[in-house]
Amino acid sequence: MSENKNKIFFVMGVSGVGKSTVGELLGKELAIPYFDGDDFHSHENVEKMSKGEPLNDYDRLGWLKTLNKLAKDQLKDHSCVIVCSALKEKYRTILSDDIENNIKWIHLVGSFELISERMKQRSDHFMPTELLKSQFDILENPKKSINISIKLTPIEIVEAIRKELFDKSEFGLFGLGVMGKSLSRNLANKGFNISIFNRHVDGVEENIAVNFKNEYKELSTALPFDDMEGFVNSLQKPRKIMLMVNAGKITDMVIENIVPYLSAGDVLIDGGNSNYLKTKKRFFYLKSKNIHFIGAGVSGGEEGALTGPSIMPGGDKEVYKMVQPFLETIAAKDQNNLPCCNYIGKEGSGHFVKMVHNGIEYAEMQLLAEVYGIYSAMGNNPDEIADILESWQKTASSYLLDITNEILRKKEGDHWLVDKIMDKAGNKGTGNWATIATAQLGVPSTLIASALFARYTSFYKEDRVELHKKYREDTSKTKPNLLNNEVLKAYQFSRIINHYQGFKLISDASKAYKWELNLSEIARIWTNGCILKSTLMWELVETLKGTENLLMNKKIIQQIKELKPSITKVVSQCVLNELAIPCLSESINFFNSLTTANSTANLIQAQRDYFGAHTYQRIDDGSENFYHTNWK
Amino acid sequence: MSENKNKIFFVMGVSGVGKSTVGELLGKELAIPYFDGDDFHSHENVEKMSKGEPLNDYDRLGWLKTLNKLAKDQLKDHSCVIVCSALKEKYRTILSDDIENNIKWIHLVGSFELISERMKQRSDHFMPTELLKSQFDILENPKKSINISIKLTPIEIVEAIRKELFDKSEFGLFGLGVMGKSLSRNLANKGFNISIFNRHVDGVEENIAVNFKNEYKELSTALPFDDMEGFVNSLQKPRKIMLMVNAGKITDMVIENIVPYLSAGDVLIDGGNSNYLKTKKRFFYLKSKNIHFIGAGVSGGEEGALTGPSIMPGGDKEVYKMVQPFLETIAAKDQNNLPCCNYIGKEGSGHFVKMVHNGIEYAEMQLLAEVYGIYSAMGNNPDEIADILESWQKTASSYLLDITNEILRKKEGDHWLVDKIMDKAGNKGTGNWATIATAQLGVPSTLIASALFARYTSFYKEDRVELHKKYREDTSKTKPNLLNNEVLKAYQFSRIINHYQGFKLISDASKAYKWELNLSEIARIWTNGCILKSTLMWELVETLKGTENLLMNKKIIQQIKELKPSITKVVSQCVLNELAIPCLSESINFFNSLTTANSTANLIQAQRDYFGAHTYQRIDDGSENFYHTNWK
Repeated sequence: MSENKNKIFFVMGVSGVGKSTVGELLGKELAIPYFDGDDFHSHENVEKMSKGEPLNDYDRLGWLKTLNKLAKDQLKDHSCVIVCSALKEKYRTILSDDIENNIKWIHLVGSFELISERMKQRSDHFMPTELLKSQFDILENPKKSINISIKLTPIEIVEAIRKELFDKSEFGLFGLGVMGKSLSRNLANKGFNISIFNRHVDGVEENIAVNFKNEYKELSTALPFDDMEGFVNSLQKPRKIMLMVNAGKITDMVIENIVPYLSAGDVLIDGGNSNYLKTKKRFFYLKSKNIHFIGAGVSGGEEGALTGPSIMPGGDKEVYKMVQPFLETIAAKDQNNLPCCNYIGKEGSGHFVKMVHNGIEYAEMQLLAEVYGIYSAMGNNPDEIADILESWQKTASSYLLDITNEILRKKEGDHWLVDKIMDKAGNKGTGNWATIATAQLGVPSTLIASALFARYTSFYKEDRVELHKKYREDTSKTKPNLLNNEVLKAYQFSRIINHYQGFKLISDASKAYKWELNLSEIARIWTNGCILKSTLMWELVETLKGTENLLMNKKIIQQIKELKPSITKVVSQCVLNELAIPCLSESINFFNSLTTANSTANLIQAQRDYFGAHTYQRIDDGSENFYHTNWK
Repeated sequence: MSENKNKIFFVMGVSGVGKSTVGELLGKELAIPYFDGDDFHSHENVEKMSKGEPLNDYDRLGWLKTLNKLAKDQLKDHSCVIVCSALKEKYRTILSDDIENNIKWIHLVGSFELISERMKQRSDHFMPTELLKSQFDILENPKKSINISIKLTPIEIVEAIRKELFDKSEFGLFGLGVMGKSLSRNLANKGFNISIFNRHVDGVEENIAVNFKNEYKELSTALPFDDMEGFVNSLQKPRKIMLMVNAGKITDMVIENIVPYLSAGDVLIDGGNSNYLKTKKRFFYLKSKNIHFIGAGVSGGEEGALTGPSIMPGGDKEVYKMVQPFLETIAAKDQNNLPCCNYIGKEGSGHFVKMVHNGIEYAEMQLLAEVYGIYSAMGNNPDEIADILESWQKTASSYLLDITNEILRKKEGDHWLVDKIMDKAGNKGTGNWATIATAQLGVPSTLIASALFARYTSFYKEDRVELHKKYREDTSKTKPNLLNNEVLKAYQFSRIINHYQGFKLISDASKAYKWELNLSEIARIWTNGCILKSTLMWELVETLKGTENLLMNKKIIQQIKELKPSITKVVSQCVLNELAIPCLSESINFFNSLTTANSTANLIQAQRDYFGAHTYQRIDDGSENFYHTNWK
């Protein structure tokens, strides 16, 4: 995928800039075929031109298609150079049809005065001034092109193109933390020429990029930097730079520092776990500076980033196309070998979807922790629990279940390592933001909130130890009486509710923000490369094609009905035996709430009207009028 | 409490401004005694002065105390005028000791040039220029005073004072919605001279203030306005204006519009349910314009606002003193007859405390709704449920229980009104903000979140009806088997957890924001006037004096232990019988989490380290080092 394979170099520009000369020289320099577009006109066009009649756009259509076909044919075997003025965007659209990502536009640029001066000196290529003027009128500058001044000699021009194409990298990776390093190696493994950057901090972060490059063979052609200007200048324009830095103020600082070195049309990709509202702000801030911005959620952890993560990019669709070849090439592949990366939607939608991914992940992890708690309370050691969970893989296969098994089996000498780990769970912000989003958008994604709060409660370790003494030490411990199959079914029930709530949150946000997100496609992106990959997720790809409300789906209704007696039994048993199961418990409570046709919220409305005159609606008045009662 | 009763008018200013002349005239005009401070010097002071020795601050101390005693004595029967230069703040502090709110400082103001010019023309009162200069050096302008220019004649000066004092109102109420009207009548009933304002909107809000004034006898002296400038100018300086408008953008708009009419030192009180973070922003914004700002939570609904609400004011403590007489007079009184209003803390802390009040309220309401749901499922009609709840008043007395009984008994013809109310519960933002605060601050106030999400879920009425058909119609309904006493105990258990979580949220916020809030005092303010008033709250006033963690309190431990078997039984029964009880259920789950010495969060930490290299701590390493494992 590096520049010297399968590329079409279109040398373009107004008449008289010397396209043919440069094109021919460039072909020789790169040792690839060279074609002059003018040689491919139809018989009718040649005749028309020989009569001195100008071609209209209709005449050009067939010709442009011919050149597009020529390019495609050449691409099968090798790169080539094609010369064509390609002044209008719509001409270039036809020329690049279906091969957008293989094309490099090389735009030869000169002023009207310079060109007409040169014309006058060239007797063999006379063109009236009027005609040259019209060429300038027609010209629409391409957004993505290598622009070279014709003040240089043809040999210098070819040298400049070569330099731009082959001494410069296609893609920049900024920030070499755990994720940044893995993504860099992934890009390099896929054959991309990359530049890598890590800041220099005396005595703390020194020569990170250079040392990293030297550590891995695949990085032999990578250009390492610890100065920002050198890094930016090492990239082909329009530059594509992926930021892998800490979300929050650091991201703002980095953007502030890098922008002065960028050029209009460059693309910044924020691959960190940024808050979607901040991504939106940054998007518009950078737009005001003519810099494109893609907020891309990246899931998969260290390993996924290296071998293929799930990527959720948001921003302008047109801009996404510029980075698509990179992101989709490094992404994981689904069961049909399609990349687990696709354009998500506008502004901060990519980071929103990643945030919900992480929220669902919080709840999935908490559910496994509760299952582990149940089996521990029933007297099983970690190996025995792993045996049980391994048997679950047939019906509930998932990445998180896999790693939980490995964790439970891990020993340190004669002891299970998990038993040595401090039970205070950290959080990095996304679960917190997902809970806040659920509150702000008025969508009850209650399992995400319960999982977040469970982590918060775990942090009160000292209080828990103290309160255990005060409340529990004198009580006799009883054990829940549950079959393996019942716990598995309860777990599956809660997972369905969790996924329902997560997709509901995305669906409602999509409506609120007018993002037009594709739920099924999001599920597909999550079927590999990310922490949420599971057979359930793969099933949901199909289910979500038919409905945005999972609980309305026939197959799910069938499943839930089969699973429900077990969740009911498991939760009641755990409550009776003093086990903390906030997520399992919330899943059945939420389900009972959502399937209650007539709830008790009428009493709450009456109370609000009683003390605050907030008014209420009536079930016997479909007009949605509001009523107030003097209740005394 | 209006101006002509029990006020001390201190006429102050540098030598030569004509204090005695004005003081005497003012006394005659108001038909109250007049005293010249100079007549109250001790024998020693008189002797010292007659020798030409200047008095030092120590000499003055006794004299100032004598004047303070004079003022206090006079206050027993009537108002009076006292003349005293009172140039330094510390002199005025002594003069006003214990009677700050009864004092009006009348500051006669003139330039050095004007006064020395007049001095030269007065042979009987000669003072060297040096001495006058030193007076100006000493003078510290009072913050709260009526300032009158000595360019006016003495008669004009007295007229100006009279006008400022008696033609102008002491307090302004801006916005005559449900709460604004009730607070206006409350203020007027307590004898305050007030101005009231409501905007004019053609055809929608016309003559609101005038019509309101004419409707109620107590408003006979109130000044009604629908123009902002007239309203502001009708108030004594420094002005005190309470805004009772919609929280959010409207509040910002009102502030933006009113500020140009205000003077430095005026006080705005936001009595709406504003977000505490916005209150902080507004506080600093107004500070930059020399306007004081108090963010005051007001609870009690329409009725409480009229007869005595609970008020939670935050801002600068010194500024609070300026509005204290008004707020504490109109507030409800607790069992010891102390006002249910006190200075809460800095910046947005008043609105934060009000937000948590409302959050606790959300959960208390939801718990009652769940109890109502349980008894409905057990086959009781609203009257029967009211009978049961009435019997609870002995042990669980509260305002919300009271009004729930009244609501349940309310009939419309032969039908209970509650049965006609649409079961979609609204929310005004504070429950939402409290949930967001709980997420942001990392404090698991889970019952507030559960209550909020229960309201959100109630809003999916159409889904609920549809899903009921799909999931429940073919299942047979069973009834929970519970004794009244068990449900009552479960309810009491959940209430304690709810109050624990609410005060924990306040306590942790106080630490995070360095507010130094007094939890016991906040509980006391909530014992009357507000929606949360209850015997439980009154008990917590004492409990919170000893601990900020309610669950560590011996009495509470005893109660919880007695209540716990019931909550366990009620929750498990409800789950088995498909009843939605998110708050009751969460209360026991949270309690079980918080009393688990060794939780299952170790597994979550292991998972995070496995896929994200997030590291973990170990229980066998007290040094809080972080570890990472290669888990494969």
